Amino acid sequence: MSIQQYQALVSDAIAKLDWNRAPQGLYHPIAYALSVGGKHLRPAMMLMTADMYGADINKIMPAALAVEIFHNFTLLHDDIMDHAAKRRGQATVQKKFGENTAILSGDQMLISAYQMLEKTDNALLPELFHVFSDMAEKVCQGQQYDMEFENQYDVIIADYINMITLKTAALIATSLQIGAMLANAPEEHRKELYNYGINLGIAFQLRDDYLDLYATSTAFGKTQGSDVLNNKKTYLLIQAMNMAKGDIKNQLEYWLQPAQGKDPQAKIQAVKEIFDKLQIPQLTLEAIKKYTDKALETLEALPIEADKKADMLQLTNNLLKRNK
Amino acid sequence: MSIQQYQALVSDAIAKLDWNRAPQGLYHPIAYALSVGGKHLRPAMMLMTADMYGADINKIMPAALAVEIFHNFTLLHDDIMDHAAKRRGQATVQKKFGENTAILSGDQMLISAYQMLEKTDNALLPELFHVFSDMAEKVCQGQQYDMEFENQYDVIIADYINMITLKTAALIATSLQIGAMLANAPEEHRKELYNYGINLGIAFQLRDDYLDLYATSTAFGKTQGSDVLNNKKTYLLIQAMNMAKGDIKNQLEYWLQPAQGKDPQAKIQAVKEIFDKLQIPQLTLEAIKKYTDKALETLEALPIEADKKADMLQLTNNLLKRNK
Repeated sequence: MSIQQYQALVSDAIAKLDWNRAPQGLYHPIAYALSVGGKHLRPAMMLMTADMYGADINKIMPAALAVEIFHNFTLLHDDIMDHAAKRRGQATVQKKFGENTAILSGDQMLISAYQMLEKTDNALLPELFHVFSDMAEKVCQGQQYDMEFENQYDVIIADYINMITLKTAALIATSLQIGAMLANAPEEHRKELYNYGINLGIAFQLRDDYLDLYATSTAFGKTQGSDVLNNKKTYLLIQAMNMAKGDIKNQLEYWLQPAQGKDPQAKIQAVKEIFDKLQIPQLTLEAIKKYTDKALETLEALPIEADKKADMLQLTNNLLKRNK
Repeated sequence: MSIQQYQALVSDAIAKLDWNRAPQGLYHPIAYALSVGGKHLRPAMMLMTADMYGADINKIMPAALAVEIFHNFTLLHDDIMDHAAKRRGQATVQKKFGENTAILSGDQMLISAYQMLEKTDNALLPELFHVFSDMAEKVCQGQQYDMEFENQYDVIIADYINMITLKTAALIATSLQIGAMLANAPEEHRKELYNYGINLGIAFQLRDDYLDLYATSTAFGKTQGSDVLNNKKTYLLIQAMNMAKGDIKNQLEYWLQPAQGKDPQAKIQAVKEIFDKLQIPQLTLEAIKKYTDKALETLEALPIEADKKADMLQLTNNLLKRNK
């Protein structure tokens, strides 16, 4: 089955969740957040993994939904911390319902994620809870580092890769690991799928960073250059800050100062030119290729029949060449 | 063993928790929040309950700590929602470390609470997780109602009792229930102890409301009349709003309007006089007695030897006559 088919199954299951409970002020924002959409990539990949090992998809769905609810919980709280007004083209929960609601409904989503996990076979619960909480802690650690980077001038690439491993890749990797675990895949396979997920997740985030400036399609959904405008410490900016010297360094530092009436388009254009001079796009594409290749090698080495992993291979190739 | 002895055991165990991990910006605020103290009443009561059934206290401690960490997580997030600067005489986490830290370290505390639960015997985990998440959801529901009451003029006493049952009593009751469960107490006993905890928790909260104005000791720790100053919808104010008529109603409404240079002490004095005229203190004491009596009846009816529940009976009497 293609990833789109798993994504459709997840969408259907999310639409069937019943949040029509009292107090509505707590649950309605959850329904709203989950209805706004998103690609449901993580739960779909969990289902795909479990399917590779012949599991009954219906038995995996609660854990898949737990991961999706958890992911959206992190978005609610991240959007407060970033004062974000829009997400997926719609008002964020904190903008639409207020910050206190985003905190409390977010908390309830984290609890609801744990409650969804309970619907899995009892015998699997202790390990499932352990793996899930371990992942959740990593995501918090990653978010903490991400916030700290905002005020840190000397971030190095290794720190950045560590941060996105925690904040982004761990959730993708754990989704695959849980899919394999619930399908009774051999322990060794679970570890390999986790490693595959980490490299995929890193490549995925680097591609996200790249597309901020270099998306060739308007379907990417974000305003072009918004990371640049916000001085967001992406792979691109960190590389540039580490490599710039002399006059280019002065120019970059000028554009990183607070706006003071600078024209946003001029800033994006100037920073892009600096990136180009330093060959940042090429470096980023090389890094994406490095992590993609690692992911593909791990997947190819996984000792299951080729036709069982064909869909995942295709997904990997599609994801990392995406323009949106 | 007296409740103080269990509280001391919990304090020791909390002091031994190691939060010295990277990123410090995530874990240090947790260590701070837990070091500021509090009475550790909930985990101490869990230990006392388990001890009534002859359990090994050491095996109960992880769940007891989970409950304490959870309780402090709710305080971190509540203090953001209330813009509270002080808690237990010290700066709140949101005041000391900033709001984003209070959100994220709070999230990690909720995850850490679940991680503490894992240290219980695997066979008990599915039920333990279920009971814990059920409680956590009730606390969120209670907090939601509490926030909604702020802008609601027609709150009735039944709504208020429902709110504090969810926000305050459920955690106390669940602590007892978990203590009994982990000690293999009969199902029937667990239910009775839960009911006892609900009534105790309601009485406890009503006493807290009462002491805001009528504490005879300065050891209560809160500024006298702070609930009145903040127009907090306590049992006292809701009763008064429901009962006031004519001139008294006009006076009460005057004092509930935004401050506009009103003298805080004059407001406290005036509202107290209105409460006295309406016999609110007497009504509140009657309500406290009603829930205390219910709690004591349940405890007395619990079919275990009298000497085993002597400490809990004493605790109940002490708690509900407390001046601090």
